[in-house]
Order: sequence, then C-alpha cells, then structure tokens
Amino acid sequence: MAQAKQRMAKRVYQARADVLRPQLVQLQLGLKQAPFKVLLIIAGPEGAGRGSLLNTLAEWLDPRGVETFSWHPPTDNERAHPHAWRFWRSLPGIGRIGLYAGSWYTETLRSEARNRRALSAVAAEAERIRDFEQVLVDGGTLIVKVWLHLSQEAQGRRLRTLRSDPATAWRVSDEDWHHHRIYGRMDRTARLIREKTDRPGARWTIIDAEDERARDLAVGRLLLTRFNQQLKRMAKLPRTKAPARVKPLRPAGLRRLNALPLDQDLTAKDYDTLREKWLGRLNRAVRAALTSGRSIVMAFEGWDAAGKGGAIRRLTSAIDPRDYSVIPVAKPTEEEKHAHYLWRFWRDLPRNGRMTVFDRSWYGRVLVERIEGFCREDEWRRAYAEINDFERQLTDHGVILLKYWLHVSHAEQLRRFREREATPHKRHKLNAEDWRNRRQRAAYEVAVGDMLALTDPVNAPWQLVPADNKRYARLEVLRSASRQIEAALEK
Amino acid sequence: MAQAKQRMAKRVYQARADVLRPQLVQLQLGLKQAPFKVLLIIAGPEGAGRGSLLNTLAEWLDPRGVETFSWHPPTDNERAHPHAWRFWRSLPGIGRIGLYAGSWYTETLRSEARNRRALSAVAAEAERIRDFEQVLVDGGTLIVKVWLHLSQEAQGRRLRTLRSDPATAWRVSDEDWHHHRIYGRMDRTARLIREKTDRPGARWTIIDAEDERARDLAVGRLLLTRFNQQLKRMAKLPRTKAPARVKPLRPAGLRRLNALPLDQDLTAKDYDTLREKWLGRLNRAVRAALTSGRSIVMAFEGWDAAGKGGAIRRLTSAIDPRDYSVIPVAKPTEEEKHAHYLWRFWRDLPRNGRMTVFDRSWYGRVLVERIEGFCREDEWRRAYAEINDFERQLTDHGVILLKYWLHVSHAEQLRRFREREATPHKRHKLNAEDWRNRRQRAAYEVAVGDMLALTDPVNAPWQLVPADNKRYARLEVLRSASRQIEAALEK
Repeated sequence: MAQAKQRMAKRVYQARADVLRPQLVQLQLGLKQAPFKVLLIIAGPEGAGRGSLLNTLAEWLDPRGVETFSWHPPTDNERAHPHAWRFWRSLPGIGRIGLYAGSWYTETLRSEARNRRALSAVAAEAERIRDFEQVLVDGGTLIVKVWLHLSQEAQGRRLRTLRSDPATAWRVSDEDWHHHRIYGRMDRTARLIREKTDRPGARWTIIDAEDERARDLAVGRLLLTRFNQQLKRMAKLPRTKAPARVKPLRPAGLRRLNALPLDQDLTAKDYDTLREKWLGRLNRAVRAALTSGRSIVMAFEGWDAAGKGGAIRRLTSAIDPRDYSVIPVAKPTEEEKHAHYLWRFWRDLPRNGRMTVFDRSWYGRVLVERIEGFCREDEWRRAYAEINDFERQLTDHGVILLKYWLHVSHAEQLRRFREREATPHKRHKLNAEDWRNRRQRAAYEVAVGDMLALTDPVNAPWQLVPADNKRYARLEVLRSASRQIEAALEK
Repeated sequence: MAQAKQRMAKRVYQARADVLRPQLVQLQLGLKQAPFKVLLIIAGPEGAGRGSLLNTLAEWLDPRGVETFSWHPPTDNERAHPHAWRFWRSLPGIGRIGLYAGSWYTETLRSEARNRRALSAVAAEAERIRDFEQVLVDGGTLIVKVWLHLSQEAQGRRLRTLRSDPATAWRVSDEDWHHHRIYGRMDRTARLIREKTDRPGARWTIIDAEDERARDLAVGRLLLTRFNQQLKRMAKLPRTKAPARVKPLRPAGLRRLNALPLDQDLTAKDYDTLREKWLGRLNRAVRAALTSGRSIVMAFEGWDAAGKGGAIRRLTSAIDPRDYSVIPVAKPTEEEKHAHYLWRFWRDLPRNGRMTVFDRSWYGRVLVERIEGFCREDEWRRAYAEINDFERQLTDHGVILLKYWLHVSHAEQLRRFREREATPHKRHKLNAEDWRNRRQRAAYEVAVGDMLALTDPVNAPWQLVPADNKRYARLEVLRSASRQIEAALEK
C-alpha cells in the first residue's frame, strides 16, 4: 500500500494561514468596489474534503460577503423552464463571493456515478456548461474552478481510517464506498468534463487534497491570485464612451427598416369589428399553446411613443390575467446593474404554460447601450451572438418567442410628443431623455437596422409593425401573434 | 328580467378619468418617497371584469411603478414550505403598487367553486389570511381590497350578450356558466370571507361592477383616498428614538440569564473525544430528520464575540454541505429595509428536507432595534407576539426549530475583543459598533431577558449556552441540537 505523504505541520499551517487570512479579508473589501463577481467552484471525488474546505473558507472569509450554493435535483418549477434557468438563478449578489460546494457540474457527475453513460452525452452536457460559463466570463465574472485531487489509494486510506474509529465511522457512507469502487471511471469522466470546460477566465486548477492543511492554503492562495489577475485585466479594459459616429454593420437591415410603408388606413368601425375577431382568434391560440404546456415570450421594441403599451394592453385583454405577466423594462436597478445584462430576463422567463410580455427587452444592449455608450464596443458587438444563443435556448425548450418592432415616422413621433406635452395625464410619459433620443434618430436607425439584420434567425424572426396608424398597428400585432402561435403549434 | 342600469356616458367618463389620471401618477411619485407599500387586491364573481379593470389601471398608472400578481395552485416547492411562505414571496418591491388579480383569496374561492365546503373550513382559511394581512398592516403596508359586485341578473345579462355575438362569444367559458349557476353559494361564501377579513388597514370596499366605466373610476378614486389617508396616518406616528432607560417587561428573564453558571471546564483532549461522539450523533439525527421530510431551522443569538460563528462551523462539519445553508444576518440591504422585518427570514426558510442556520435572526427586532431605537416602541413591543406567531407557523408545518443564546461574561468578552485587536486576521471582526454595544451591556441584558421570558413557548424554547469556555459551548450546542432533534422525531 502506498504511504501517505508527509503532512504539513500544524505550526507551519497556522503561520501561513495567519498571513493569508488578512489578505482574503482585504480581497473581500476590494470585491465590494470591483465591477465583477467571483464564483469559486469546488469539485472532486468523495472524501476529498469539499465540506471541510468550505468550513475553512467560512472561517477565513467574512461571512457577510459570501454566499454558499449547493445543488439539488431540479424541482418541477425548474424543469418547467429552459435548462440554464436554474444556473442563472444561482448567482451571488453584489460584491459577494459565491462558493459552490455543488454546481452545474454536480448533476452530470452524479448521473455518471449512477450509470455509466455515453461519452458523447457527457461531452454535450459539458459543452452546455462551457457556453454558460463563457457568457458569464465575457460579462466580466471571475470563475475559479478547483478540482480536489485524491488518488484512489489515498481515498481508500482516508475512508478506512475514518471507518476504523467508532467516533468517526459515521462520516463514511455506502455511497462513498461505491464511488471508491468506480474511481477509475469517475476519474476519466471528470477529466473529459474538465478538458471540455477549461477556458480562459474559467480555468480548472487541480489541487492535491491529501494533506488537508496544504489543500486549504492552496485554495485560499489561488483565490487571491486569480482575483488580483482579474483586477488587473479589468483595469486594462477600455472605458465605455458614446461613439462619435454610428456606422452600420449590415446596411441591409437599415434598408429593410426604411422600406416599411407607414401610410396604412383603418376606420374606427372596421377596427372594432376586426379587433374582436382577432382577439377571439388570439385567445384560442394562446389557450391552445398554454394548455399544451408551451410557454410564450413576447418582446416589444419600438420608438418612443410608438404605442407599445397600448398594443400590449389590447393584446392582453384577450388573455386570462392569471396566465400572463407584463414586465416593463426600465433602467436597471442597483442589483440588476451589477448582474449580467441577460440576468433579469432569465429571471423573468415564464414557466411552461405561462406567458410573459416584455415591454422593451434584452435588445437594449444593442440599441440604447450601443448608442449612449453604456457598454463597451466589444460588449455590444458580442451581444448579437449572445442574444441569438439566448433565444435559441428558449425555442429549443419549446418557448414560442415573438418579437415586434413598432415603427413610427419621425414626423408622427413629433406629433405624439406634442400631444403628450399638452395632456396632463400623459405628461409624465415624456421626459428630456425622449427628446434626446429623438435627436439621435439617425444613429438609432442604424442600430435598429443592425439588430434586424443580425438577430433575425428562423427560430426567432422579427416582426416589423407599421405604427403611424395606432389602430392598424394594434390589429397587426393581434394578427401576427395569432398566426405565429398557430404556426408554432402546427409544427 | 331586471333592466340594466343607466351607463355612464363616455364623455363624462373621459372627463373624470382625465382628472383622476394625473393624480394617480402623482400618487406613484409619492409612493417612491413613502415608507410603506400598497397592495390593491381585486376580487369578485366571474364576469365582474377583473381583467378589464386591470387593463385600465395598467393604462392609468406608470407601469414601471406597478407589479401585477396572479395566483396559481402551489408548486411542489411552495408546498414544501410553511403555508404563508408563498404569500410572503408575492409582495411588491420598493415604491411599487402590487396589483393582485388573484391573491391569497383565490385558492379559497376556487375550492369553494369546485366543491361545497364546510363553513368552518372556509372560516379557518379566512382567519389565516386575516392574520397574515394583520402582520403586514401592522408593519405599515396599505392593503386596499375591492370586491367587484355584480348581481346574478347582471352577470347573466353580460354572459348572454357576449355569447350572442360571434366576435365576443369566446370571452364566455363553461366555467363562467358554472359560476353563474352557483352564484348564491359563492356569494354567501364570499360574504363570510369578507366579514372575517375586514379589519382596520385592510378594509373591503364593495364596488358596483355593472357599469365598467363607473367601476374603473371608483377603484381609481378609492386607491387615491386610501393612499392619502395612509400618508396622514404615517405622518402622525411618533418618530423612532433610542430609549433613555431600558426597563424590563418581565424581570424573570433577566434573572434566568444572570443565573447561568459560566465557569465550565473542559480539556482539549476530552473535547476532541466528545466532539467526535456528538458530531456522529448529530449527523445521524439530522439525516433522520431531513430524510423523513422534516426541515430544521436554527437561530443563533448571543453577545458579540460569544463564538456563534465557531459553534456553527463545528456543527455544520457534521452535515452534508448539500443539505444546509448558513445565513449570516447583517444590517438589512435597501430592499430588506423597505420590507417587513420578518420578510427576509421568510424568504430564506428551508424547504422540507433541508436545514437553514441563521447567524443572528429575527430577534434583532427586540434586541438591537429596541435598544438603538431603530424601530418604534409599539413595534418592538408587538414583535414578541409576532415572533411567537411566526415560529408557531414553522413548527405547525413540521419545522424543527432550535434557538440558542450564547452567553459570555462581560470580562471574557473584553478579553476576546482585545485578542481580536491584536490579531491581524481577526481585526476586521471588531468595529466601533461592537465597543458601543459593549458599553450598553446592561440595557442589552434587559432586552435579552425580556426575549427569553416572552418568546419561550413549548414549541420553540430557548437554549441558553454558557460560552466563556469555547470548547464547552461548542459541545453544548452539539449535545443540545442532537437531543432536541431526536426528541422532535420521537413525537
């Protein structure tokens, strides 16, 4: 039997811990000012001491700056949402370190322990995890991943020692012995997963777990090193600023926008008749979709005063109030500002059988954030692909996704702004920002055009709605929504 | 057949709405500054137009200041928590009006529609709702409850009119006709529920729903009136201030505290042996509790530097990290500050089969908030009963609730403060507030004594832990927790 390695002396350990601990507390103070989050993911074979490591970290760190996560089989509510929904919901709050005793890796490893699985299935899950982590990393999150390494011999030694003492035998479960027996298989699977998910910004570090003291010190130091590297990396990033000139990435989108005719006509009488007809049809389509367990997500974008609110109210008047939520998307709150820009939309996704209407949406990233310089150029440029990927995850789950751009002419918008100014109960709807956006019309048109060109895949196409005529626009939304939902159900 | 009443002319309606709308927007601006939340609960028979009323309110109000709630059968996760958990989770955020198309009344009314139920069962549910609302109202929330009245004749007329036009027939469901047939029974049940839950601060207002225009105006006006009344009521409340002298409500508690011997001794060797023994026993007890579907809530209170963190870490070292969370309770965040003081504890309650350890707890209300004057005297005086009621709800659900007060002498505390000052990695644990609290020892002793005397019911008794000897205290927590959990399982 292999011999246990030399263990670090308690005196040495304590001296080193005494140096490390104030630095970790300093890190936590720094994190409160830093514009990023830290996730520390701890994985490894049974007996490697995840629990005791967590306990040490809980002692070293200021507990108010830490959130600990574990991982459980998904609840029915989690299963009724797109796969990554529970990942997104498990992120730490502002200025906190998230400690993950379990994480998105847990499910995959646990299934492998229960039954040997095809490597391709494991690889596919790992790639899904990699993509999720990549989105966080691109958004500035620091992900530190630790694999606690314990050889099969050392594992066996540890389990036997614990078992032999009546006072500690309770620490060893049947599951631990099972894991010990299938060590080789678990180790190979874990290696595959680590290879697939080892990416810049989310690197795996393998730490020898045989000597508990050395292990805990190594993890503490790793956290410090990575945090300081990230601070430097973030300091080098260019500052955000509004672009001097907004040039189209894909002029075809802008042409499509400007080619939309806006001279529709519709009498009040015709509108009343058609509206009831289409409300009825929409009601049936929505009920059919929701009762069959599908969910519906609608995103409304459009110029200020294009009539998004009115169109949404006409639409929802056909739907049982229990079945839908309308989410007005305003400026992010403090909490939302510190989170990934997609986070609040993940949070508000409907479960199967429900509907969410977003009044403005995740497209703010490539519209207002691009034009006003609220994010860096690399961020909004990357967003088109991120959004396509986000929407693909929704439609892959079976979400019926509808996206509307309500288009009004510059002249009609001015007329509506003036009307708002003149009407006491509408005045609050108009502010200096609206006038500023209006002056930026040309720049916004470029951004809208690029959005239409770059985020218009088959699974989530844009609907352009001419909205100079309010009645026509409302009716068009009803018609288009009914038809799209019906079409989605036929597939 | 009874005739429909005269309907309000559209012109009249619009003139009145034009007056009301800027006032409502003004209310929303005021609410952002006001130290309370507003809930508007809308209930009434089918066909009374809850959906269309909500649509009108959505048009009148600034949607960014509104959160709309509907109500669904509980998910498995909701069922795995104490009953009121889902009520607490459905409250609007800071400065927002919560609009409830469905509410805690929905379940009760729906069950009645499915099957005639014993009046006593309905009354019991109504009383549970009344108690929940009372806690919110006492905490300063304004609850406006509207019952949309529609006579059986008017209901029938409305359903028939809708049905007769092919364009609107889809609005009438089989369920609507069912409700029409059992109108009398539903009406009697609703009246009973309203009577049971009509309390100051949460009054029902019955509004005639036959004329939609008059109905919507009436609800808008009611919201305004109640809001302004509440503003006045809040303005009259005394300011919070720290008490000049802290006098005990129940001297027996203080005597119990001071009678606790603190001179325990325990060698390191004995501690090591006993600790492993009791960790093993605790591990078995916790596993037995959690696997049988019970949940465990532990609340740790005690003097600064009494060793709560250390005791918690020793305790949790016996438990699978997947099964428990430790919640450090620090000063409330902005969001928590605007919520009821119990809200964040409700939020963090474990589901069945899990355990939550609170490092400080809801007892802050009767300790620091009382002594420092962070809340009004009537508030902390009321808190004893509120806390007893809260804990009763937990234990009624089957939660195993353990509460610890870690007691150190004034002298030992000083020694530990000095030690923290002298140790670099402990220095951050000590701040000016700790020294200030220390000078207030006598006042805090009175508050602790009252807490022990007034919140010590059979279902949730306090455990006093002598903690001048850290080893003894940690062991005592293990012993006491094991025994209490075992005892709870035997029942």
